[in-house]
Amino acid sequence: MATVKDLQKKIKELEAELEKERREKQNVLRPKISQMSSEVVDSNPYSRLMALKRMGIVDDYEKIREYCVAVVGVGGVGSVTAEMLTRCGIGKLLLFDYDKVELANMNRLFYQPHQSGMSKVEAAEKTLKEINPDVEFEVYNYNITTMDNFTHFMERIKTGGFKSGEPVNLVLSCVDNFEARMTVNTACNELGQNWIESGVSENAVSGHIQFIIPGETSCYACAPPLVVSTKTDEKTLKREGVCAASLPTTMAVVAGFLVQNTLKYLLKFGDVSYYLGYNALQDFFPSMTLRPNPTCDDRHCVNQQHAFQLREKSKPKVEKVEEKEDDVIHEDNPFEIQLVSETTEEELKNSEGFVPDLVQGLKVAYTTPAPSQNSDSGAMVDNTEKSLEELMKEMQTL
Amino acid sequence: MATVKDLQKKIKELEAELEKERREKQNVLRPKISQMSSEVVDSNPYSRLMALKRMGIVDDYEKIREYCVAVVGVGGVGSVTAEMLTRCGIGKLLLFDYDKVELANMNRLFYQPHQSGMSKVEAAEKTLKEINPDVEFEVYNYNITTMDNFTHFMERIKTGGFKSGEPVNLVLSCVDNFEARMTVNTACNELGQNWIESGVSENAVSGHIQFIIPGETSCYACAPPLVVSTKTDEKTLKREGVCAASLPTTMAVVAGFLVQNTLKYLLKFGDVSYYLGYNALQDFFPSMTLRPNPTCDDRHCVNQQHAFQLREKSKPKVEKVEEKEDDVIHEDNPFEIQLVSETTEEELKNSEGFVPDLVQGLKVAYTTPAPSQNSDSGAMVDNTEKSLEELMKEMQTL
Repeated sequence: MATVKDLQKKIKELEAELEKERREKQNVLRPKISQMSSEVVDSNPYSRLMALKRMGIVDDYEKIREYCVAVVGVGGVGSVTAEMLTRCGIGKLLLFDYDKVELANMNRLFYQPHQSGMSKVEAAEKTLKEINPDVEFEVYNYNITTMDNFTHFMERIKTGGFKSGEPVNLVLSCVDNFEARMTVNTACNELGQNWIESGVSENAVSGHIQFIIPGETSCYACAPPLVVSTKTDEKTLKREGVCAASLPTTMAVVAGFLVQNTLKYLLKFGDVSYYLGYNALQDFFPSMTLRPNPTCDDRHCVNQQHAFQLREKSKPKVEKVEEKEDDVIHEDNPFEIQLVSETTEEELKNSEGFVPDLVQGLKVAYTTPAPSQNSDSGAMVDNTEKSLEELMKEMQTL
Repeated sequence: MATVKDLQKKIKELEAELEKERREKQNVLRPKISQMSSEVVDSNPYSRLMALKRMGIVDDYEKIREYCVAVVGVGGVGSVTAEMLTRCGIGKLLLFDYDKVELANMNRLFYQPHQSGMSKVEAAEKTLKEINPDVEFEVYNYNITTMDNFTHFMERIKTGGFKSGEPVNLVLSCVDNFEARMTVNTACNELGQNWIESGVSENAVSGHIQFIIPGETSCYACAPPLVVSTKTDEKTLKREGVCAASLPTTMAVVAGFLVQNTLKYLLKFGDVSYYLGYNALQDFFPSMTLRPNPTCDDRHCVNQQHAFQLREKSKPKVEKVEEKEDDVIHEDNPFEIQLVSETTEEELKNSEGFVPDLVQGLKVAYTTPAPSQNSDSGAMVDNTEKSLEELMKEMQTL
């Protein structure tokens, strides 16, 4: 029979092992870093980012620590978006989502099977804090489209910035349905808050980002892109055994474009894209800029347009005359032109020979270029800024 | 003093707790799934991928389970590449890397701080198995450029496929230096193995992928892209406190392009890109195809070119006459034309106004288009297939 001494020794051993397991499980958070350093040592998580200064890309990379970004929707695109910003050392992130992690999400990056059942924002916050404890988080496990939550959501966008009481610097919409996009649009139009919309198609092989400056560029209600709801309640669509396709590749590319343009905007380098599409089947990247629709349904959008025009008019005329925007006011938009033209089934067949089997209530908003079509013709690939009027003329001549 | 009974009870409790901690730490691997199902339930990790069939994108998605891909280098691009393939349910992955995880890698996706010090292949295999236990792994923690390892590497590419004894279906090069790229090139030329090269620039804001079919398209020795070594030993460059910049955005976009084209190639949908570039500053995507250099330094490349020409000649003439490749044989390449033209410091200044501060032994291989340049002119953005001769003529007229 074991002696008391033996047993006590055994207990000490077990306690040590338990302590070790627990420490490992906690993933030993690295200590916080008070100041970003350029020092080139293996232990510096910011050395490769601070090197952007030496490379002449960014003047003041450290400034990222004073910025706050809201990510609305932390699914296939939003979770990767939040991870990229966290690894880049953003000052603060606000995350909004009401969904739970499921095994059915495992074909996209970020979440892991053992997180199934957790709320997405809770799972995301835990992982992101382990990755970078320097980032500050505010997470909300709710649906922004209900009245009470919408009020709270607006309030956080308006006052939840890095310095309390200030607005966030940018809102990134990574939601997967029309209703939520319109909600973000409404909030940002009212607040005059710049945001970037993102989306991936139901067939998983195309996506886009769209930078919206209220009053200055087309808002989501001026011209909704990609997949367009036809009034059917999208919540019911989801429940009826309907399953959109998705790929980790397309979602990571869209998240990459989204965060790259966020960094360019916040840290002031390169050119921020206003609309950038990704067509995976042909590696084709439509790009354009659209001015707002003066008859937009959203009255806050129309108000922001007036405010923008007043600001433009009040600018001293001597300053950058060459680059000054046209003050053309579009009286109306009788053709209800969208950012990307809607296509009929016939047009679809002609363009890529296939009509996706979309569920009731959804239609495809753009498609791949027809093989015979030259990639440097057509409005979709045009890099120049166009007014709705110009686009309308072009479409009439087609 | 504690009785023996008390101590034994305490031991049992500690053992139970230890067991619980260990089970939790293992992240409770989900059970293997013997057959991919299209069933739309939250617990099916493949529902969103199998939906690609219903959407008409892929004919036979399940076939992915019979494919094997080798990923050489599991750093910023390679780790995300391996994760995407794992989540897509690839049959088997071979991973090669000799590096260790460091905190300095935390500005890219995938690795986490608590993995610091682990070998990259070991850390990657553990995470990937937790994400998808259906995937088979073979990992090698060695440098492929040494003689012994190179022999073993060649053997695994040749016989390490999904069915033992068969070659892998595709090699993806995600390495960060010239020597390793040339090693992959040498192996694939000798084996006639199709592969895709990938790379990201030292200043973190551009990248590319290049699909290489030995004998049919330009190999890495025919025309090395992006950053070109000028004979200085790259290993010494790394040690001298030199630190290239990197961004999770650029690396995820390149990995996205790489795996998307891998899926298109393996599952036969869309068009596989031969060369696709990503310039993040201007969201510009050069694309082209280049035929091999008949005077390539790699004799296996030249042999593969002869073999390809013989195969082409022996094809029945009636078959697809319209699409048949030209049989033009280029006698020589006196201008040593590269895939992307090298630029001088002056050209760089003219194009984007900035000359990156590259360390000795590295030079920039391509740059952003000059603002005045129209994006649909110039060889770099041309989507059509060009011979070296045609490109040479174009460059002489510039």
